[in-house]
Amino acid sequence: MTSNQIPDIVIGRLPIYLRALTYMAEEGKEITSSQELGERLGISSAQIRKDLSHFGEFGKQGTGYEVAYLRDQLKRILKVERTWPVALVGYGDLGHALAHYGGFAAKGFEIVVLFDNDPNKIGQKVAGKEVVDIAKLPQVVREKNIKVAIIAVPSSAAQRVADALVEAGIKAILNYAPIHIAVPPDVRVQYIDPAAHLQRMTYYLE
Amino acid sequence: MTSNQIPDIVIGRLPIYLRALTYMAEEGKEITSSQELGERLGISSAQIRKDLSHFGEFGKQGTGYEVAYLRDQLKRILKVERTWPVALVGYGDLGHALAHYGGFAAKGFEIVVLFDNDPNKIGQKVAGKEVVDIAKLPQVVREKNIKVAIIAVPSSAAQRVADALVEAGIKAILNYAPIHIAVPPDVRVQYIDPAAHLQRMTYYLE
Repeated sequence: MTSNQIPDIVIGRLPIYLRALTYMAEEGKEITSSQELGERLGISSAQIRKDLSHFGEFGKQGTGYEVAYLRDQLKRILKVERTWPVALVGYGDLGHALAHYGGFAAKGFEIVVLFDNDPNKIGQKVAGKEVVDIAKLPQVVREKNIKVAIIAVPSSAAQRVADALVEAGIKAILNYAPIHIAVPPDVRVQYIDPAAHLQRMTYYLE
Repeated sequence: MTSNQIPDIVIGRLPIYLRALTYMAEEGKEITSSQELGERLGISSAQIRKDLSHFGEFGKQGTGYEVAYLRDQLKRILKVERTWPVALVGYGDLGHALAHYGGFAAKGFEIVVLFDNDPNKIGQKVAGKEVVDIAKLPQVVREKNIKVAIIAVPSSAAQRVADALVEAGIKAILNYAPIHIAVPPDVRVQYIDPAAHLQRMTYYLE
């Protein structure tokens, strides 16, 4: 079964399963079930079993899943058993927070370069990485063979930055700017949309 | 049909539909279809129709959906036709970026108070709001009848902050700290997990 036969919405749930399994492993849990995973995540056990069945047979009838094994298989499927170099564009408050964010390393990502257009920021060292002039983005992204980027610039600059990233060979963009960006079909974009997360919760309020 | 009969995973897709419809309306589009929405979002048209059918009949056979009408109905369902006051805890880089984030107002949220424990930050004015001593959190959250909060503190403090928020009556928490937080069953938590978004894309790379 090739990747494009599996719905993207299924792929989108795998990191959620991986996160839950990682927490379970940290808690010392060795065995889990689709029921237990489902209760933690608010997803039906049938959905979890169906999602995982796209990729193989991970559990044993009656004994459930080995937590560490399933975690490692999901890492392999999502290709994060390796570490992906990431370019971060925009060294404002958000860029600063992301440069120091502790959640990337264990999940397969490392910010290896930061770009900004502010002469006062260019040349600064951040967590061991230098802030580089955005004019050098095409060259640096190609030299370092970076395929993954994070946009943390104001909305007004986001499309221009996205165009430059695509031109330089980036294939996956995580966009923090609250604006839709247009990219060619072979480039993927995900949005960090805190308001959408809040809306998912206000549905239940009152 | 009461809310707890509709799967949370369906609720989680409504803000995504709302975002796409909002973009469409801004583009001047008046009519859309489940096919068109699905192509934009990488979700099957059958899934979209099934999700929406939980809440009523929004389209006309053969003519599709009125963009502005469906957008407004989704706002009503998600209870974001109003504006929810939000408490932001943690005024570091991330808190600073969130205080200035332009994506909340149009989506039904307004940060009305910021909390921090740093004496140098307490009393500062940020986008018209004051940074308040976190010791006053219980009192202020109750006085302002705030039900929604954002955690933007380091992981080591996140559970302690969550406990204080729950104690003060908060029912919905958006957590930026890369750590699982435990809350009572009547409180909802959503996680901002940029690495999970990146993992959803690396699946497709190479």
